Order: sequence, then structure tokens, then C-alpha cells
Amino acid sequence: MTSNREIHLASRPQGWPTEENFRLVETDVPTPGPGQIVVRNQYMSVDPYMRGRMNDVKSYVPPFALDAPLDGGAIGEVVASEAADIAVGDTVLHGLGWREYALLGATAARRVDPGVAPVSAYLSVLGMTGLTAYAGLLEVAAMRPGETVFVSAAAGAVGSLVGQIAKLKGAGRVIGSAGSPAKVERLRALGFDAAFDYHDGPVRESLKAAAPDGVDVYFDNVGGDHLEAAISAMNLHGRAAICGMIAQYNATEAPAAPRNLALVIGKRLTLRGFLVGDHGNLREAFVRDVAGWLREGRLSYDETIVDGIENAPEAFLGVLRGDNLGKMLVRV
Amino acid sequence: MTSNREIHLASRPQGWPTEENFRLVETDVPTPGPGQIVVRNQYMSVDPYMRGRMNDVKSYVPPFALDAPLDGGAIGEVVASEAADIAVGDTVLHGLGWREYALLGATAARRVDPGVAPVSAYLSVLGMTGLTAYAGLLEVAAMRPGETVFVSAAAGAVGSLVGQIAKLKGAGRVIGSAGSPAKVERLRALGFDAAFDYHDGPVRESLKAAAPDGVDVYFDNVGGDHLEAAISAMNLHGRAAICGMIAQYNATEAPAAPRNLALVIGKRLTLRGFLVGDHGNLREAFVRDVAGWLREGRLSYDETIVDGIENAPEAFLGVLRGDNLGKMLVRV
Repeated sequence: MTSNREIHLASRPQGWPTEENFRLVETDVPTPGPGQIVVRNQYMSVDPYMRGRMNDVKSYVPPFALDAPLDGGAIGEVVASEAADIAVGDTVLHGLGWREYALLGATAARRVDPGVAPVSAYLSVLGMTGLTAYAGLLEVAAMRPGETVFVSAAAGAVGSLVGQIAKLKGAGRVIGSAGSPAKVERLRALGFDAAFDYHDGPVRESLKAAAPDGVDVYFDNVGGDHLEAAISAMNLHGRAAICGMIAQYNATEAPAAPRNLALVIGKRLTLRGFLVGDHGNLREAFVRDVAGWLREGRLSYDETIVDGIENAPEAFLGVLRGDNLGKMLVRV
Repeated sequence: MTSNREIHLASRPQGWPTEENFRLVETDVPTPGPGQIVVRNQYMSVDPYMRGRMNDVKSYVPPFALDAPLDGGAIGEVVASEAADIAVGDTVLHGLGWREYALLGATAARRVDPGVAPVSAYLSVLGMTGLTAYAGLLEVAAMRPGETVFVSAAAGAVGSLVGQIAKLKGAGRVIGSAGSPAKVERLRALGFDAAFDYHDGPVRESLKAAAPDGVDVYFDNVGGDHLEAAISAMNLHGRAAICGMIAQYNATEAPAAPRNLALVIGKRLTLRGFLVGDHGNLREAFVRDVAGWLREGRLSYDETIVDGIENAPEAFLGVLRGDNLGKMLVRV
């Protein structure tokens, strides 16, 4: 161990973030105190929700502090331990990404078995990303077999799992929207019944063509015109699980859509926002289902890997732009 | 019986309706065929939702036809019957208002006991209006004792019942908004803990002042800035029952609000549209509760009565303007 590099928030972005909002800082590798461990991070997650934490507003998680390391999901190998139940060499999942070496209390780390799946999978399909898809679709939106499901940002980490899980749980028809022809092609390969590039025309029209009999469940990662289109397309008693609204995370003005919200009355629609943290009750069923599907080769997950902690800001900007196919990860 | 007068839709309103959109038509009093009855209407209901049916758009109920009588809730006395189970002199509730004499199949009428309550009450507190308030608050929004409830258009037919039922079912704090000082005063008399006139300033600020600890349940009759304010004020896991959006029924441009919809994610809010017709399962409990509260003098209901079928269009315009305190009815 020589030195540790970490990414600090240098300034709060106004609108779209830039590289200037971040700073690469070199520090010493930390030494664990009693009950603590030091983890050499192997992978860290960059997620759209982190954009919200860069604003100085009250929210469900506190904002990132200025001139301090960012944080987020990470996985790595324990290189020093002063904790009884975690040993050097263990692989642990924890919340202190955006740095090469993480110092944390052992209770804040969860040991995982690196023999079951590539360790990166614990940050994607087997982790919060997978549970978000699973809980949003099956618990929040309560998808039933035979229903038509629409998911936006469908080639992203969560969206691609939502579509596949929907099919595996018996959805009648699954439709995805994405931001490039290559992504649309990937969705078809993943088993989506229909997919469209939202650049090809108004989302409302593309969705109507893809879902001639309407939509029962909408899994929203985008907000804006996607949510508006979904509300228009939804059938009686349709449900929307609102997971994210990436379309507006960098907006400097409040968005106008959805202008058709009054349709929720006549169609008896339910729009429900959720955070995966409320759905830990599903973890056991989730792991059983997903591990089984992976074993049987029935569930695919894409990862877009960027190398080097110094490139983490660029990876984060990339996920906001939609450069990623599946989960965007930084290999530290 | 001499002649029958009824109100036809003469043209479809653009924006706010005017008297010119309606036509008073004189016809013969109908004669019942087999299985039919003729009802001399005593009261008919004018409701905000009827505005939507004046547009020629696909919705959950078909639009009103041009050059034909409008329809809607009504109550009256049977004056001719060719049906086995309904007799001349019975009082029946049915769906053919906007006319002095209604001809209908006996199966489309529900006999009520005029000795239990004034017959007009079957169009308000004991009817669909009351069940709308009851179901929306207790089933759709699933209000729990101790919670803070906000209701818009709170001096209207549904809103005034929502607030009172909330208190009767143990709400911790009930807040109402209305459109005049007299209405605000009435809300206080009805037992609302706080009430404000939405003309007095931005709804968001008025609501924040009235609900310093936030709102758990929002019963929406208004939409627009009221819904936006409620979303901002709502606590974690808050629920909105979306009953109406009167603010935009006459809008000629799509409304922009709520611009803060992304808050549903972090706060895990549920917005759910509903129609009373889906909640017939509650009718028995509703009648038992409401009849009990009325008997004990714990529930008040206001009625604003306009006389004469020829004044029904004006009464309808009045309810859109908010001229009414409680239920707006036409005494035919």
C-alpha cells in the first residue's frame, strides 16, 4: 500500500455536471481502528440518483458534502481488519465507493461469496440494481401474468432487468424504450417483444404503435415525456412504479410534463414512487429467483466498465448521458 | 301530466361553458312500456365531472350526445309503472336527470325510503357524493387514525364530507382549502382544524402554514397548484386520492403542474385516481357509518338548491365557478 486516490465533490453542478465539479485527491491509505476494516475497492457503482445528491437540498438521503469524497455502492477485498468477523482476503459489499481504499466499520460491510458470481454482479444483477427492478415491478406495480409492461431506459441497469423479469414472471407483452439503435437491438435480443428509440419520434406515438392494446404496468426511469406517454397509453387500473426521472435530473427549470395527469381519475391509475430500501422484505425471494435464472441462463445482465478511479467522474457523466449498456461500473 | 321539459346539449363548450351550450326543449310526458316506469324528478344533481362528458373525447363514460338530453343523478316519485316491483308513489334514485319526467327501465332505478332522510340527501350525503368521500379517504388513500389530511374544494359536496369523515375516523389534523372567506368560516364550523382561502396567496405557502408537520393524505378535487402544493407538503409514504381536477376542466391548454412530481420517488408517495363506481363493496359500511353519524348529529351536509329545470344550466355553471356550499342540486 502506498497511497489512496479518491474523488471529491469540488463544486455543486448547475444543470449538467462537468469534470470541473470533481477533484481527484491523493491521501494516505487508512489504517483500521478497533472494529474497522480497510477495503481495496475493485468495483464501484455510478448511478443516476447520485446527481440529486450533488444538489444542496433536503431529500431522503443527505446531499454530498463539498470537498469530501463522494460515496456509493462498492465491492472489494479486505486488506486490513481489526474486526473479529471479517478477515483479510474477504470480499465485501459496502457504501464507500469513489475511492481506492475504504475505511469502514465492519458492521457497514456485507461479506459476499466471490465464487457464486463475478464480484461485479453484486453491484448489478445480484445487488440493489436487481432488487430495484424486482421490487418495483412485482411489489410496487404488482405486475400480474398476462399484462403488458412498458419500461423506459430499458437498456440501462435496472430497465434491462425489469423487462426480462417481467417476461420470466409471465408478462404478456414487454416494451422498452432506449436511446440508440444498438440499444434497441439489444432489447430485442434480451427478449423484449417491442422496443423503440425515443429519438425516432414522439414517445406517445412510438408507444402507441408498440402497445396497440395499451399498457398495464409502467416502470418509470425517465419521467417527462415518457411518463406522459405512459399515462396516455395505460389501461384501466394501470400502475406506474416511479423509480427515477433521469430526464429532469439536470433540468434547471421545473418540467411541465405530464400534462395529462387528470387521466389518472377516469382510468383509475396508480402512480407510486419507491426506493429499494423499503423492500428488503423481498430480498430472500429476489436472491432465490435471480440466482436460479442466472444459473439456468435465462437472465442476462450487461455491464459497461470504465477503468480507473480517475475516470469515475467521466463514467458518471456517461451514465447521465446514457452511454452505458446495462450497469455502469468503474473498475478501481 | 301535460308536458315535459328537458335540457339538451346544444353545442360542445370550448373552455368555460356558457348558457348558449344548452337548450331547453319541451316534449311530451313519456308513457311507460313493459318493465318501464316514469319518474317525476324532484331533484337532480349537477356535478363538475359532467364538464368532461361535454367534450367529444373517449373517456370512462361516453360523452353527452348533441341535441339530446343530458343525464346524471336524480331522484323523484314514480308516476306511472309497468314494472312488477315498483309502484306508483315510490321514490326512486336513478341516472336520468336534466329533465322533469324520466322514462326508464325499472332495473335502472333504486327504490329509497323517503322517511329516513330528506330525499335530496340521497343525491348528496347518502348517495354517490358521500360514498365518493368515504371510499376515497378510507380505501383509496387508506387514511389511518392520527394522520394529517388535506382536502381541496373542501366546502364542496365531497370535500366537506371528506373533512368531517376524516375527523370522525380519528384523523389527527384536517385542513381544507376553499374559495371564499364564508366557505373558510364554514369549514371551521364543520370542525376542520385549519382552513384557508386559496385566493389569499400561493397554495404551497398557505398549506405549509396550515400543516407545519406535513400532510399524510391528500384528497384532491382540484389538481393544478393544489396537487403541486400537496406533493411538496406530503410526508414519507403519503397518499393522494385523486377524485377530481376541477382547476383544469375548462382549460384550453394542457396544465403544467405538478412540476414537482419527481418528489414521489424520494418520499415514496402514491397518487391514485379513482371513481366511486369501483367501490360499491363499501356501500354497506358507508350507509351504516353515515346513517349513524347523521342520527347522532355528528355529520353535517350543506346543500345549495336552485329551483326549476330551466335554471339547471346556470346551476351547473355555478358549481364550476364554486358558487355552491356543499352539494349543488336543482329542485325540478
